[in-house]
Amino acid sequence: MFTANGDYLKLRGSYLFSTVARKQREYEASHPDRKVIKLSIGDVTLPIAPAITEAMHKAVDEMATAEGFHGYAPDLGYEFLRKAAADNDYKARGCDISPDEIFISDGAKGDCGNIQEIFSKECRVAVCDPVYPVYVDTNVMAGRAGTFNEQTETWSDLIYMPCTAENGFMPEIPSETPDIIYLCFPNNPTGGVITKDALQKWVDYANKVKAVIIYDAAYEAYISDASIPHSIYECEGARTCAIEIHSFSKNAGFTGVRLGYTVVPKDLKSGDVMLHSLWARRHGTKYNGAPYIIQRAGEAVYSEEGKKQLKEQVAYYMKNAAYILDGLKEAGYEVYGGKNAPYIWLKTPDGMSSWDFFDMLLERANVVGTPGSGFGPSGEHYFRLTAFGSYENTVAAVDRIKKMQ
Amino acid sequence: MFTANGDYLKLRGSYLFSTVARKQREYEASHPDRKVIKLSIGDVTLPIAPAITEAMHKAVDEMATAEGFHGYAPDLGYEFLRKAAADNDYKARGCDISPDEIFISDGAKGDCGNIQEIFSKECRVAVCDPVYPVYVDTNVMAGRAGTFNEQTETWSDLIYMPCTAENGFMPEIPSETPDIIYLCFPNNPTGGVITKDALQKWVDYANKVKAVIIYDAAYEAYISDASIPHSIYECEGARTCAIEIHSFSKNAGFTGVRLGYTVVPKDLKSGDVMLHSLWARRHGTKYNGAPYIIQRAGEAVYSEEGKKQLKEQVAYYMKNAAYILDGLKEAGYEVYGGKNAPYIWLKTPDGMSSWDFFDMLLERANVVGTPGSGFGPSGEHYFRLTAFGSYENTVAAVDRIKKMQ
Repeated sequence: MFTANGDYLKLRGSYLFSTVARKQREYEASHPDRKVIKLSIGDVTLPIAPAITEAMHKAVDEMATAEGFHGYAPDLGYEFLRKAAADNDYKARGCDISPDEIFISDGAKGDCGNIQEIFSKECRVAVCDPVYPVYVDTNVMAGRAGTFNEQTETWSDLIYMPCTAENGFMPEIPSETPDIIYLCFPNNPTGGVITKDALQKWVDYANKVKAVIIYDAAYEAYISDASIPHSIYECEGARTCAIEIHSFSKNAGFTGVRLGYTVVPKDLKSGDVMLHSLWARRHGTKYNGAPYIIQRAGEAVYSEEGKKQLKEQVAYYMKNAAYILDGLKEAGYEVYGGKNAPYIWLKTPDGMSSWDFFDMLLERANVVGTPGSGFGPSGEHYFRLTAFGSYENTVAAVDRIKKMQ
Repeated sequence: MFTANGDYLKLRGSYLFSTVARKQREYEASHPDRKVIKLSIGDVTLPIAPAITEAMHKAVDEMATAEGFHGYAPDLGYEFLRKAAADNDYKARGCDISPDEIFISDGAKGDCGNIQEIFSKECRVAVCDPVYPVYVDTNVMAGRAGTFNEQTETWSDLIYMPCTAENGFMPEIPSETPDIIYLCFPNNPTGGVITKDALQKWVDYANKVKAVIIYDAAYEAYISDASIPHSIYECEGARTCAIEIHSFSKNAGFTGVRLGYTVVPKDLKSGDVMLHSLWARRHGTKYNGAPYIIQRAGEAVYSEEGKKQLKEQVAYYMKNAAYILDGLKEAGYEVYGGKNAPYIWLKTPDGMSSWDFFDMLLERANVVGTPGSGFGPSGEHYFRLTAFGSYENTVAAVDRIKKMQ
């Protein structure tokens, strides 16, 4: 008799963003006259840049000919894309990462979820709190999280590193020693950023205790300050302790195009075993490469035209971030993030719970955000807004929130 | 200290097709004057059909506008594609499968590899022997296979169902009772097919012992005989015991486009738990949907024009299959498959090992095929050729093999 994976059954309710989407749907169904503005999920709104659509049209035309047809892609992805990523995202920043340490995938979410699979089930996992739910949920599904405590809303076997206003949303080295540490900067959901010096301390710590850092760099394109590293490999020693995950969703608007990559340096080893080999094996066995057309789209992200056009997109969203930040401050909210990061993290007023604030915002301002508590217990009494809406919607949403007072 | 997943370390050597590719590369490097013909990996060669490239161009244009831009896709995939699949692949064949039981993905290989994750580690797995390596390898990686016996070349905890010339390449109900049964028809690698009556017996058996059948229907488009089912849901009772995996790679040439889907009927339960919910949870947590552009390409597969054009592609490859089948028979080989299936499975001459025959074919005919032993111990002394080459290459390859005698 077949039986279900018991670890899956431990998962709490449904995925955070599904619940948010359901609540929005229900509200819209019962209030068809209201125009709800969605500043919740980190989905972008600007169309794909011309340099990129041009590359995709060209690739589609290639696929229509016998000479230009491309079947199965190479396991790690096409060389043209891996080289462009190595040159632009690493070499240009003085990081020593070679193209064959880059694994092209269909997006950062999958990589964030799948990467834990190459580690033993016994590894102790440390996460920031609040945190992107995928890190926690996929470790629950793998049986690495233990049991859920309804009181504290934490998993018994995970190590939580609270990030609140009190510590400037910066995790502290935990008292228990972890084997795997998830870090994400610029941070989702808090919008917090880390200096190179502070990140160097994490790299030194990981090397000391032989932990691996899974560094989610999905939002690095939003960094404008020179003191903030774009990659963990800007830190000395990161090649022996860090895996980095990169997204094209937020820098190039690829949420519906689907492309990402993960860097596993060949110096990263467990005993004699290169993690690079294990991740290569996973790619070779459970994955068949990102579409050729999409990999060509990724290449165009790094073209001169592409870079110019995408810089404008990032500037557009950061103008939204500034508008939200200023508007909410004006309205008397305690607000964080929104600089070098596309997320705004606000403290709910009068000690309201995150979900109560969600409901109030939806009902009174017809604005959808994401409850902080959905990202972990230390996210309670916080709330996330994203800068990825259209400028018009963002202005309208902020003005409605202001009027709500 | 972080440690690697010990189950990954149990895997044998590298992925079969990577080894085949490496041997070809090495031969070509040392014999730059020879033109090697590849009839090994199941990669297609015909360009993408006009109806499909047209749909992709249109979708790219949409993505370039604010109104037509599509960000994150719905968790299960776009309704337009799920509905087209339900109508054409199921309703039209009298199968009761609804669009919301269809999960769109980036390909059958990933689904074949990931599906085991929703089952408990204790489930006993039965596989045909020879078999598509992904079923076995992903169960090894999940810790479900036990230990490898070098003598028998089998895993201690897997149940093997030999498929050889002696039993007409048809698995028999195993003496030990499995919890999960992988079946693939038309079969990769043997090219064997199953009648509806024979498949009904498997469905009845699975329902009786409460096993789940994972039915890989990747090659159903190659079926032309009316007595052979395209889907396991043509059998009565399959909704309570079967998951079906569908590929667009072979019917529409999508090996480099990447699209597939998996059907999990809502009647398929372990106790109170719907496997549908577990697979939905995996999709929601570890996956972010197939690209919008590619889902539109999938939709075009089901358009009138698309169906017409793809029928011609299938006919083209089946002409190759017939040429290989006839040519090898003429040359005195014992040959199987190649009817209702794009694979030709031949017995190596004079009891040669599969890899010796591989080397001989590469060196003397400059043709690359796949050693049967790479698919499992019962594949030893067999060899797989695919019909997916160009007609010219297929003819040249067969003529060279004939001359080799």
